[in-house]
Amino acid sequence: MTIRIGVIGTGMIGEEHSRRITKTLTDAEIVAVSDVNLDQAHAMIDRLGLDATVYETGQALIEADNVDAVLVTSWGQTHEEYVLAAIKAGRYVFCEKPLATTAEGCQRIMDAEMAAGRRLVQVGFMRRYDHGYNLLKDTMDAGNLGQALMIHAAHRNPTVPERYVTPMAIHDTLIHELDTFRWLLDDEYASAQVAFSQKTRHAHSEVRDPQLVLLETTRGTRIDVEVFVNCQYGYDIQCTVVGEEGIAHLPEPQSLTLRQAGKRSNEILQDWKKRFDDAFNTELQGFIHDAQAGALKGPSSWDGFAAAVAGDACVKAQESGQVEPVSMPDRPDFYR
Amino acid sequence: MTIRIGVIGTGMIGEEHSRRITKTLTDAEIVAVSDVNLDQAHAMIDRLGLDATVYETGQALIEADNVDAVLVTSWGQTHEEYVLAAIKAGRYVFCEKPLATTAEGCQRIMDAEMAAGRRLVQVGFMRRYDHGYNLLKDTMDAGNLGQALMIHAAHRNPTVPERYVTPMAIHDTLIHELDTFRWLLDDEYASAQVAFSQKTRHAHSEVRDPQLVLLETTRGTRIDVEVFVNCQYGYDIQCTVVGEEGIAHLPEPQSLTLRQAGKRSNEILQDWKKRFDDAFNTELQGFIHDAQAGALKGPSSWDGFAAAVAGDACVKAQESGQVEPVSMPDRPDFYR
Amino acid sequence: MTIRIGVIGTGMIGEEHSRRITKTLTDAEIVAVSDVNLDQAHAMIDRLGLDATVYETGQALIEADNVDAVLVTSWGQTHEEYVLAAIKAGRYVFCEKPLATTAEGCQRIMDAEMAAGRRLVQVGFMRRYDHGYNLLKDTMDAGNLGQALMIHAAHRNPTVPERYVTPMAIHDTLIHELDTFRWLLDDEYASAQVAFSQKTRHAHSEVRDPQLVLLETTRGTRIDVEVFVNCQYGYDIQCTVVGEEGIAHLPEPQSLTLRQAGKRSNEILQDWKKRFDDAFNTELQGFIHDAQAGALKGPSSWDGFAAAVAGDACVKAQESGQVEPVSMPDRPDFYR
Amino acid sequence: MTIRIGVIGTGMIGEEHSRRITKTLTDAEIVAVSDVNLDQAHAMIDRLGLDATVYETGQALIEADNVDAVLVTSWGQTHEEYVLAAIKAGRYVFCEKPLATTAEGCQRIMDAEMAAGRRLVQVGFMRRYDHGYNLLKDTMDAGNLGQALMIHAAHRNPTVPERYVTPMAIHDTLIHELDTFRWLLDDEYASAQVAFSQKTRHAHSEVRDPQLVLLETTRGTRIDVEVFVNCQYGYDIQCTVVGEEGIAHLPEPQSLTLRQAGKRSNEILQDWKKRFDDAFNTELQGFIHDAQAGALKGPSSWDGFAAAVAGDACVKAQESGQVEPVSMPDRPDFYR
Repeated sequence: MTIRIGVIGTGMIGEEHSRRITKTLTDAEIVAVSDVNLDQAHAMIDRLGLDATVYETGQALIEADNVDAVLVTSWGQTHEEYVLAAIKAGRYVFCEKPLATTAEGCQRIMDAEMAAGRRLVQVGFMRRYDHGYNLLKDTMDAGNLGQALMIHAAHRNPTVPERYVTPMAIHDTLIHELDTFRWLLDDEYASAQVAFSQKTRHAHSEVRDPQLVLLETTRGTRIDVEVFVNCQYGYDIQCTVVGEEGIAHLPEPQSLTLRQAGKRSNEILQDWKKRFDDAFNTELQGFIHDAQAGALKGPSSWDGFAAAVAGDACVKAQESGQVEPVSMPDRPDFYR
Repeated sequence: MTIRIGVIGTGMIGEEHSRRITKTLTDAEIVAVSDVNLDQAHAMIDRLGLDATVYETGQALIEADNVDAVLVTSWGQTHEEYVLAAIKAGRYVFCEKPLATTAEGCQRIMDAEMAAGRRLVQVGFMRRYDHGYNLLKDTMDAGNLGQALMIHAAHRNPTVPERYVTPMAIHDTLIHELDTFRWLLDDEYASAQVAFSQKTRHAHSEVRDPQLVLLETTRGTRIDVEVFVNCQYGYDIQCTVVGEEGIAHLPEPQSLTLRQAGKRSNEILQDWKKRFDDAFNTELQGFIHDAQAGALKGPSSWDGFAAAVAGDACVKAQESGQVEPVSMPDRPDFYR
Repeated sequence: MTIRIGVIGTGMIGEEHSRRITKTLTDAEIVAVSDVNLDQAHAMIDRLGLDATVYETGQALIEADNVDAVLVTSWGQTHEEYVLAAIKAGRYVFCEKPLATTAEGCQRIMDAEMAAGRRLVQVGFMRRYDHGYNLLKDTMDAGNLGQALMIHAAHRNPTVPERYVTPMAIHDTLIHELDTFRWLLDDEYASAQVAFSQKTRHAHSEVRDPQLVLLETTRGTRIDVEVFVNCQYGYDIQCTVVGEEGIAHLPEPQSLTLRQAGKRSNEILQDWKKRFDDAFNTELQGFIHDAQAGALKGPSSWDGFAAAVAGDACVKAQESGQVEPVSMPDRPDFYR
Repeated sequence: MTIRIGVIGTGMIGEEHSRRITKTLTDAEIVAVSDVNLDQAHAMIDRLGLDATVYETGQALIEADNVDAVLVTSWGQTHEEYVLAAIKAGRYVFCEKPLATTAEGCQRIMDAEMAAGRRLVQVGFMRRYDHGYNLLKDTMDAGNLGQALMIHAAHRNPTVPERYVTPMAIHDTLIHELDTFRWLLDDEYASAQVAFSQKTRHAHSEVRDPQLVLLETTRGTRIDVEVFVNCQYGYDIQCTVVGEEGIAHLPEPQSLTLRQAGKRSNEILQDWKKRFDDAFNTELQGFIHDAQAGALKGPSSWDGFAAAVAGDACVKAQESGQVEPVSMPDRPDFYR
């Protein structure tokens, strides 16, 4: 059974996902499209050669009879509304991060999903599908490293635009690490702290950059993440897990080694979309196959909620300069 | 239009390809299966949950009305016969290497294909679809290395079975390099030489191992390939291109870096199927999409023929200990 | 002019230094030896074949007419006393860390040295002489990285003995980093914080291990150092400098790359003495040549004092769990 | 006992060795200097601040009463004459390569040394003292790789001057590999072959570059060496030993890893003197200490002879394009 997908939001990530569903992945087709800008929706249909209906609203798309699953790739502020509508209509929904802009919004989504009685929501935390991160998780789960004592990580972007302000280093950037470490460690956060260094001369006036985020988990794993969004040299994701029995480093992306002009060098990617292109494919293919099977297994509303709670604590820590607790309620059995 | 595929030969590689067409790739389905062992054909259909007809002979399968394309993954000795039949029936055919067991057989296939007036045959040289090799080719084609002066390469397997004899180091092992270097360099071979070292104690009595194969191309690129099929430690493919303006090394497969027990280490793969798993996917997806578009672009009968001619010279060089010429006819315009 | 050296303390490091002065370095000879255990002093003289006088006390050795310079490699508690005596006697003195066990003791040494009117003291911070660290400092001093924004570092030992207690992670282990970062950055510390992770099962009861030490400098460079003294796998020193214009990593010690048994691996050293063997040679040769030239240039009493002040703040931070200020007086002109 | 050294030839390498003996090494001093250009000899004495006598001829220097050992760093054509004179005078002699410009000349030196009844000659094959090569030899000698089956090597220089002609690729460049492999393998050569690739556009008209030298040893180890003296990008020495039980790669020189401008890179050295600076120190210090002990242990006249014989076969192979035998006489017991 081919999964018939409706796409809400045809910006960059919406079109990329539509393209991969159409050109690369199997067992799904895009049958419905919506965007606040209807011209943009039509243009995407043309570019990809889709046989799809354009709906004037996301709500109408969600309610369309021939839509099995919804892809929410609209502006973050609208995610909660569309996810709630999809749950109400009994549609599977894949929602790009954030699940909602507040922890309360995520809570409302969980409440609706639990009321619906089955998992309908997957959140777009694609790193869980990255080959390198999976090598790391596999060796951890096999016990090769023993207990994870520390994680050292870095999230570096070459530059950010003028509209990027300090809290976005958490909500837009660190959010992926916040989900990834929970998943790697199978643990929740207990506290967060943020330390700013001297600001780089390449950062514009509204963003303090770089910063060091310190997290502690309930089992006592200590995590430090350098967030540096004007590092100039490339898009670079680093992750090292320090365990009782050994240490593992996330692999670098595959690249040629060149010997040229006095250097032995490897290219560093500039574009996060290239870094996680395979992961996006695996993520969406998984969603499609899980929807076929009637049982979602990917990152859940709970995962979206947990990242939001931790993110809120980090932003508070940015402002206070103090160690801030991360207060998580008990995990509902529904999400175990 | 979904491409309907018939599979002749349901051994290991036949089943792996069938699985990827069914589970991973898009735009194709397996509708017909044949094997000398009909039970094995039925068993594969069951394992993969296919809705496919079993044919008693490859010939019958090829002639089935609902077969658009044929996958030849049977015993090498039978390839020529099935490929010729597919051409005759006007079917696209993807043939695992070797295209035929002799250069003459490859020539007969080319003759038939040229008579048919359009490209119907793709040969299973999957390395052309490997991400790392493509990084290498891209940088060469962009002129970053200048003229390629030398290639240093190695093809290492952990062990080989008792039935593996010395000429198989060429026909079964080096064959991939023979195609890859032609493709990387866009050049043909001029001569071949083989030098045997002291034999490893891990080689059984019927195989001289390792050996160093030396090739020269018509433009004067010098290539040395270590073929070592009892290296014990893993499946390891190395390729370094020495150019006028710099040197490039094929990337290692992605792996964790571990610090443990006095070592900083990365795992080396043991299994060639894992090494080229992504390449197999890309290769077959390309074949499917090219068949949809009605124009094959992958490795052609000419490529199969050229590898066979070079392989024959290498085997002759194994026996003679001399530099043996590689005599290639002019490339027909049909294959340009 | 050969520098005639008296050695106070013939334990492991004392004998190693004596050996290198005698067998490897130039322009110095050991003419006097002292130890609380006179038998051990005699035994070292025999093992190294020295033509040296044994003195019953360090004081007597310092006052010997034929001693130009003194090497203090005795128990840390005695360093201050011997260094003060050497200054009083007008002898050059190379003192292994710590210069004194308290910041006050270091202050007394500085006062005496300033009163003497010339630099007589070098402290054994050998990392400043390590080839890798010098590559790092050279590229920083050349401005290649721009302003240093962060340093990520790790100091890992395979195991520590039962007598190693938590504050020793600062005084005996981190002390080298505390000096090294000051030197790399040409800056002083402003604050210190220590965060403990879950304790490794390999640590004995009296040491909390590992820990993450966070330092801030007066110019706002943020430093995190993992101190992990029961990491099991080896002696491993990591240092990454994150600058405005790029990032540099301290090189790994040189080692073979092996392909064997399914792994591509490099050996990790187990012994800190091997890690810094070349640095020890360069350090002591520098001391000898500077003593010949009559002008010490190596790490000074001020450097020993600064490391002690920062170390005290770190130990306080271990106990308080808070961010502790590092209160440094102004640097005397004498030490500029 | 300080070894008193006379230096014949004060060109670049002569002055570098004089400097290291004077400034870095222990237990030797330079007491005598000679050069065809006496002004140059005096100038070096001034630059290094030596207390040394200038002799008008190498012969006179060799016969000076206060000279214990002679360093021959003059023009290659004169080496044989000075080494023979040093043997006659009973002086230890360290001779830069070549020992003599012909195998016959080397034979005459061996005859004289055997007649003298003790080893007086060490040849300047400094790679035997390189840390990386010693790691390689140690692991081979420990049996970790099993029998050595193949060696893949490269010797690359950025550029060569106009006076560098094709045979110099053997006599001046490959000569170091010719000695190194004999030492690593404890074996002698049986045959040599040279294959030229297409010539790089960066080579001037009198040198064919690059070339691939193929060697076989008496035990059947196969060696391929790329000699590429206009590679542009740096001075780069590669060596990989393929053994029955595993493979080992010579380490790269230690360097910073930088992340900058879209690349992760390490600097490649440009200057062979920097590449082997430590090895030169160890080599000469070894010569000095062996001369003190009255028993030379470094590369002998036999090693100089063996490299010359193999080099002659390689040059013959350059010209003939054929596999050329390397005819070595039996090794005299004197050199075992």
